[in-house]
Amino acid sequence: MKVGIFGFGRAGRSVASVFLQSPDTVLEWVVRRSSKMEHRSVPEFLGIPADNPGLIYSRDEYTADELFDLHPVDVVVDFSSEDGIDYYGEAAAKRDIAIVSAVSNYPRDKVALLKKLARRTAVLWSPNITIGINFLMLASKVLQKIAPYTDIEIVEEHFKAKADVSGTAKRLADALGIKHNRIKKIRAGGIIGTHEILFGFPFQTVRLKHESISREAFGNGALFAATNLYGRKRGFHTMEDLLLPYFAL
Amino acid sequence: MKVGIFGFGRAGRSVASVFLQSPDTVLEWVVRRSSKMEHRSVPEFLGIPADNPGLIYSRDEYTADELFDLHPVDVVVDFSSEDGIDYYGEAAAKRDIAIVSAVSNYPRDKVALLKKLARRTAVLWSPNITIGINFLMLASKVLQKIAPYTDIEIVEEHFKAKADVSGTAKRLADALGIKHNRIKKIRAGGIIGTHEILFGFPFQTVRLKHESISREAFGNGALFAATNLYGRKRGFHTMEDLLLPYFAL
Amino acid sequence: MKVGIFGFGRAGRSVASVFLQSPDTVLEWVVRRSSKMEHRSVPEFLGIPADNPGLIYSRDEYTADELFDLHPVDVVVDFSSEDGIDYYGEAAAKRDIAIVSAVSNYPRDKVALLKKLARRTAVLWSPNITIGINFLMLASKVLQKIAPYTDIEIVEEHFKAKADVSGTAKRLADALGIKHNRIKKIRAGGIIGTHEILFGFPFQTVRLKHESISREAFGNGALFAATNLYGRKRGFHTMEDLLLPYFAL
Amino acid sequence: MKVGIFGFGRAGRSVASVFLQSPDTVLEWVVRRSSKMEHRSVPEFLGIPADNPGLIYSRDEYTADELFDLHPVDVVVDFSSEDGIDYYGEAAAKRDIAIVSAVSNYPRDKVALLKKLARRTAVLWSPNITIGINFLMLASKVLQKIAPYTDIEIVEEHFKAKADVSGTAKRLADALGIKHNRIKKIRAGGIIGTHEILFGFPFQTVRLKHESISREAFGNGALFAATNLYGRKRGFHTMEDLLLPYFAL
Repeated sequence: MKVGIFGFGRAGRSVASVFLQSPDTVLEWVVRRSSKMEHRSVPEFLGIPADNPGLIYSRDEYTADELFDLHPVDVVVDFSSEDGIDYYGEAAAKRDIAIVSAVSNYPRDKVALLKKLARRTAVLWSPNITIGINFLMLASKVLQKIAPYTDIEIVEEHFKAKADVSGTAKRLADALGIKHNRIKKIRAGGIIGTHEILFGFPFQTVRLKHESISREAFGNGALFAATNLYGRKRGFHTMEDLLLPYFAL
Repeated sequence: MKVGIFGFGRAGRSVASVFLQSPDTVLEWVVRRSSKMEHRSVPEFLGIPADNPGLIYSRDEYTADELFDLHPVDVVVDFSSEDGIDYYGEAAAKRDIAIVSAVSNYPRDKVALLKKLARRTAVLWSPNITIGINFLMLASKVLQKIAPYTDIEIVEEHFKAKADVSGTAKRLADALGIKHNRIKKIRAGGIIGTHEILFGFPFQTVRLKHESISREAFGNGALFAATNLYGRKRGFHTMEDLLLPYFAL
Repeated sequence: MKVGIFGFGRAGRSVASVFLQSPDTVLEWVVRRSSKMEHRSVPEFLGIPADNPGLIYSRDEYTADELFDLHPVDVVVDFSSEDGIDYYGEAAAKRDIAIVSAVSNYPRDKVALLKKLARRTAVLWSPNITIGINFLMLASKVLQKIAPYTDIEIVEEHFKAKADVSGTAKRLADALGIKHNRIKKIRAGGIIGTHEILFGFPFQTVRLKHESISREAFGNGALFAATNLYGRKRGFHTMEDLLLPYFAL
Repeated sequence: MKVGIFGFGRAGRSVASVFLQSPDTVLEWVVRRSSKMEHRSVPEFLGIPADNPGLIYSRDEYTADELFDLHPVDVVVDFSSEDGIDYYGEAAAKRDIAIVSAVSNYPRDKVALLKKLARRTAVLWSPNITIGINFLMLASKVLQKIAPYTDIEIVEEHFKAKADVSGTAKRLADALGIKHNRIKKIRAGGIIGTHEILFGFPFQTVRLKHESISREAFGNGALFAATNLYGRKRGFHTMEDLLLPYFAL
């Protein structure tokens, strides 16, 4: 599977590193908005041996059509920003290239665009592309179905400066149909991020807990998404969709 | 659903209390080996209002055939001891009464007997009938399938006097195909029992944790087992079997 | 050290059991309000071998003066109710018998009475007499002094039916001079009680956590209080006072 | 307080950043073995505004005597390597400059050298200079003194590749006089490092837990060490020594 990545910030680098180390994927290129690191080799930059040069290009160097024709890929993975999709979306859909987007804050019209593109190619969008969180969401739904009488509380811990309740905690609550006041927010020091879903039974508790070790936790999730999206026909997907089949034991 | 219980120790009482409070079940009787509390009313003894007298009988008062004919039930729940099945097994199977046994340490010949009875009626045997532990086992299998490259460690905590690694931890390890040396045993004070399955990713961890609040945690599990076994045809079941359909989201 | 106990509810029994098993204390008697169990032997009732009969008396059988003259003790431990002190307080103070009270909800006039008695004998009052919680309070104060720039959050978990923030959590917050909105309240199922004090540093966290295994956790605390109060002269004490010398390493 | 730092790896940078942000300290310089970043400004490099240029020098540029004469400091903080002390030790001691060394693996002769230098100036050596771990060690000693009958277990979690039991866990065990087999080692994925000391009482548990968020956790510890060492006369110190007075509440 040939992969191209948009974005080379902290998350993008970590994702590139996971793809470079996977035996099943070839990193063809990374595209950045800026031309600063143009034509440097990603494997060399990250110190990971690879057969493929895996160069960095800038958006100004090629149109997306030129990019995909000169350097074809099967899947693109987008860790850039909300306007990345404007650059490559149409060109990718036209060529049936699968799109994995981990951009967290799309305005409505971009989400609509993603869904429109999904009529022509396979598209996945996940604002939190970690395997752990999405697994927690589904496993919690299962337990809630098994034991609907349990009390569910969500505890999320983050660094002091994060003012609002985490978007992930809200999505967990929504998925379980519980009110947002069951989310308990802890703010202290430099905690990167933990989410715990607590199920209270009369004489036992079950806790499903996810801890982020670094903000680079997206690599394995993106690889999972790309691998499981690859070969699918057109359609709009979420991480949940791709994880669901694994729950049929 | 009419239910009879064998055994009225700590676990048996807790289970009786859960069945009495469930709107879907009627507790018909409890049978004890000893005649000490003969003909006392279980709802009265436990202080839980109920329409049905729910009396305590002793094994000496009736044969199982007499018991089932005079006081018919749909399901029997066994929290007595390994020889309980000798008293009621044949009589229950003959009448197509479902059998839920939570006796933890059967010798081989009793397990064989259970399986033989299962050719004629629905039988479930679970040495740890809590919902939490059995959910953990299945959810862990799912996550292992999703992320086979993660490192899995099992941590179990129990009271000082418990010498050996817990049987539950061993069963968790076996279900996941990991070696018993991945089980880390903590022994301190009066800890009732916790089991944690830890999945280590490169940049995140997922922890699935079960804590027992009291040794009476079996009530909800037994109710779940009885409710989900009721109406099934003959066959030998485990808690995992009954939980599996809930994983098909 | 000869000890008498007031109150024989769940906490009182657990405390009696700890005193019976301590090589340094002799349980002289237990006094109950009701005469139901009059003259039964506590060691026999609890199944703990002891040289001393350790009988149960009722408040009606003796006045406190008669009790103390016929069955002298060095320390009384009070797990009864707010009016226990009216029965025995004056008689104990007069004889220089140390008083350990773990009654949690005294009205103001009883606290005043305790302090008045403390002018004549050693008195300790602790509404949460566990060693764990009181240790946590002092250790947290130390860490706050060492690292005043850390963010402190208190997380307390209890059973569903407990509506209010726990009194213990409030006392912890007050001791640390932090606002009560830093207490995060978790309510689920049958959780007995946990308190965690979380210190957030930029790149590390410290968590001090107390978990109650059963509501009988007061025994070791009461023994510690009695042992450390015994031999002290008159004065009003708290668990913190008695723990403080142990912090001078 | 004027400070100089030896070493500018990951830990050294993090420490420099904490000193730059403290109102009580002025970062005079950083000395590296390599001349690569010579004469760059540390505040500029780290993006932290400061009045002082805070330049980077190399060991080859100056002898330590020249360095201290041209750019005098009150305290040096050493995050370099075991031979750093050979470069600056004698010159610092001669000028009564306090020495804080966080080098973790000194051979015996270097420890002897540190102690020799301590006859002339204040020296602190700590192989794990975090406040959290050293606080845990002392608080645990206090609790062990209060409740010597508790069972103590140490649980340490680290990344998969760390083969041996952590040196910190061993030092915790030694400080508490418990055997190393009470240390339970968890190895999974990319866990940075946690240490938990668990005290088991009959009916309660106390857990003191330290979690490292990043390998840069040494900044606050080094600042604490430098601030508390400054003004002390000659002598050899540990983090424990400096923390002890804070335990006298």
